[in-house]
Amino acid sequence: MWEPEAVKKFNVLVEVTLQPGILDPQGTTIERSLPHLGFDGISGVTVGKAIRFTCEAADEGAARGEVEELCKRFLTNPVIEDATITLERA
Amino acid sequence: MWEPEAVKKFNVLVEVTLQPGILDPQGTTIERSLPHLGFDGISGVTVGKAIRFTCEAADEGAARGEVEELCKRFLTNPVIEDATITLERA
Repeated sequence: MWEPEAVKKFNVLVEVTLQPGILDPQGTTIERSLPHLGFDGISGVTVGKAIRFTCEAADEGAARGEVEELCKRFLTNPVIEDATITLERA
Repeated sequence: MWEPEAVKKFNVLVEVTLQPGILDPQGTTIERSLPHLGFDGISGVTVGKAIRFTCEAADEGAARGEVEELCKRFLTNPVIEDATITLERA
């Protein structure tokens, strides 16, 4: 009897950050406001995107390959942004 | 001789997500575009913010308290957004 190939589900988090040296106006604005609001001791604020989704693939390698391709082609601007991929079995 | 209180540094990640049931137009737009770009098997796309910074505090409890207060008052809209705080010693 024919057995369908098992498809596995993965929970994926893609954190998109601006590359070092690229101006981060959102982060700068937050950081400048903090002392006026009474928050001390906070520095180096950066603001990026956290994109979460579910990916179906034959195995973790295939899932990671698809997500890397997706990041390069669609989710990030590779000229100014970096992507960090976290992948775990759903 | 007087010893200053030791100040510890923590690397903080605040992930800001829309609460369940709140419309996520960015996520929907990404998800709808994927089949046209040749990406299959991806679902449940959500887009949030990833805010990173360094926090100085006496201990981890004090740091977490300050970050929670910061999330409530400034980094999120608590009516429609949730914050997940990850904190580790720098």
